[in-house]
Amino acid sequence: MSVTYKDVVGAARRIAGHVLRTPVLEISPGLFLKLEQLQHSGSFKVRGAFNRILSAGAPPPSGVIAASGGNHGLAVAYAARALGIRAEIFVPDVTSPVKLAGLRALGAEITQGGAIYSEAAEAAAKRAAETGALEVHAYDQPEVVAGQGTTGLELVEQTGGVDTVLVAVGGGGFVSGITLGVRGPEAPAPTLTPAPAPTPTPAPAPAPTSETATATGASGGSATRVVAVEPELIPTLHDALEAGRPVPVPVRGVAADALGATRIGGLAFDICSRAGVRSLLVPDDAIAAARRALWERHRVAAEHAGATAYAALLSGAYTPAPGERVAIMVCGSNTDPGTLA
Amino acid sequence: MSVTYKDVVGAARRIAGHVLRTPVLEISPGLFLKLEQLQHSGSFKVRGAFNRILSAGAPPPSGVIAASGGNHGLAVAYAARALGIRAEIFVPDVTSPVKLAGLRALGAEITQGGAIYSEAAEAAAKRAAETGALEVHAYDQPEVVAGQGTTGLELVEQTGGVDTVLVAVGGGGFVSGITLGVRGPEAPAPTLTPAPAPTPTPAPAPAPTSETATATGASGGSATRVVAVEPELIPTLHDALEAGRPVPVPVRGVAADALGATRIGGLAFDICSRAGVRSLLVPDDAIAAARRALWERHRVAAEHAGATAYAALLSGAYTPAPGERVAIMVCGSNTDPGTLA
Repeated sequence: MSVTYKDVVGAARRIAGHVLRTPVLEISPGLFLKLEQLQHSGSFKVRGAFNRILSAGAPPPSGVIAASGGNHGLAVAYAARALGIRAEIFVPDVTSPVKLAGLRALGAEITQGGAIYSEAAEAAAKRAAETGALEVHAYDQPEVVAGQGTTGLELVEQTGGVDTVLVAVGGGGFVSGITLGVRGPEAPAPTLTPAPAPTPTPAPAPAPTSETATATGASGGSATRVVAVEPELIPTLHDALEAGRPVPVPVRGVAADALGATRIGGLAFDICSRAGVRSLLVPDDAIAAARRALWERHRVAAEHAGATAYAALLSGAYTPAPGERVAIMVCGSNTDPGTLA
Repeated sequence: MSVTYKDVVGAARRIAGHVLRTPVLEISPGLFLKLEQLQHSGSFKVRGAFNRILSAGAPPPSGVIAASGGNHGLAVAYAARALGIRAEIFVPDVTSPVKLAGLRALGAEITQGGAIYSEAAEAAAKRAAETGALEVHAYDQPEVVAGQGTTGLELVEQTGGVDTVLVAVGGGGFVSGITLGVRGPEAPAPTLTPAPAPTPTPAPAPAPTSETATATGASGGSATRVVAVEPELIPTLHDALEAGRPVPVPVRGVAADALGATRIGGLAFDICSRAGVRSLLVPDDAIAAARRALWERHRVAAEHAGATAYAALLSGAYTPAPGERVAIMVCGSNTDPGTLA
């Protein structure tokens, strides 16, 4: 497809110096937290934002434009300010006060409206067509996917490699970028296995709600396996894998302000389904419990979306095999800290 | 003296597997945060606690005993629980509700009493004499100093070395341990310079309240320079260096629940004064601002004591020279997160 491991490597070079190399904390032997919630603007989104903007060459006079439930908007506003260009951000009504305040502090021009992300996205696309501003999509652009994937590259370097990475999913930019980024230069799956067509789904078995790792993971051999984790209430990748194509889902629950896409991105669906990425669902109370545990046990302050991957482990939706090396992506911290304890 | 770099290396071997190797975040080129607030029990104190307990061999039936404004108590309770032994903790009245709740959750037996740390410490020493429990001092024991120093060893490994480390000071266990830990196997200062007697102070010049780094630091040459940072309201090391010996100071202000020693420890004074460690003072409002900035800019949740070293940088009390590599020890996070924003 249109995004590859090489694009992720190129993105890493392009955005170096603009984003942080976020640290990894080994909380017990072989269990790693990638602390991406410490990233500039409070989430991984700034990686894709910088890569998209820097890939486009000189920005148009009207600057950049984005639609976002919050984190992507913060990231685009942060990147634009760092690069000295104008940013216009369209946000849906569901956006949290913390994220709105952050956007204002970064000097972005904000237009709030629409019940959910997709309505803000339509408004932003319309506006971009009028002004000629560079659109930075929240997930479904090759440069954005490649930028998010740099988190996976770093993870491999920092840990020396893991068996499994647990990643939360909204529109799928993060999970698909990481799927490319952890793969390494030789990607065995696409050459050894005929790539399945988008329809039907490559794994039409009953959707897993919990999973125990086996010696040979979904991607086979020694490759890093990416496991998607989604709120039961916003199963964008899960339902797409089941249907064999991106399908709309309702957007509800505690993580809706960050995992608020109504369907998985086309790029993400293609990358994840080809790579055999599976999706585990976790209920909202498991996400809330994981968020509290990240603070109480590990002093990591995360938003609900940022704790969603950890929820799979804590709730038992994902059970590592003995000796399995597992990394958990903690991906966002734009939250009211008063709600952590 | 009775603690050396070799003791720190020995401590690192002894406590490996019991404590976390806390990550380092490079927030701008050459500026590092050592995220020790992510440590088990929420502060560096668990390093010294494990080293003291594990150095003593089989624990007595009455277990371990400690007096603590909070973080040390939490650390001893954590270590005792991990090792399956009994812990009795004496805490002063000033102890924060967050820390008290943490102590209870760890299963420690708690005795609260005394206006300040030193009164709780007297009660604990008396009790230890009665029961034969192993006393784990909050700072003034060789094994405790060596344990805290392992943070400095890690920092050097993780960064490849820095010019300057900014460290908060209470009783001095952390700053003195780090002074040993960053020194490396060849310690030039004690052999090249006659060790000054404890009295008079080696630097009787007017105490600095702010400082700009110069090409040759206090410890000379390419060695890592340790700079102590203390609240103006609790200047244990500062006043001791001025007086040429540990002297009592009042215990007040926002960081009193963690930096609550009434005088610097004898071991710490000896190590710091021989090594030429200087003390910078910061006002409470600079500490509070640094704590807010750590959260708002870097999503690092720290308590006031944990933000004290960063306050020196943020307030301009310490100004790095161009190109100087500086590490800031973020040392504690036992705080109510609702007070971060």
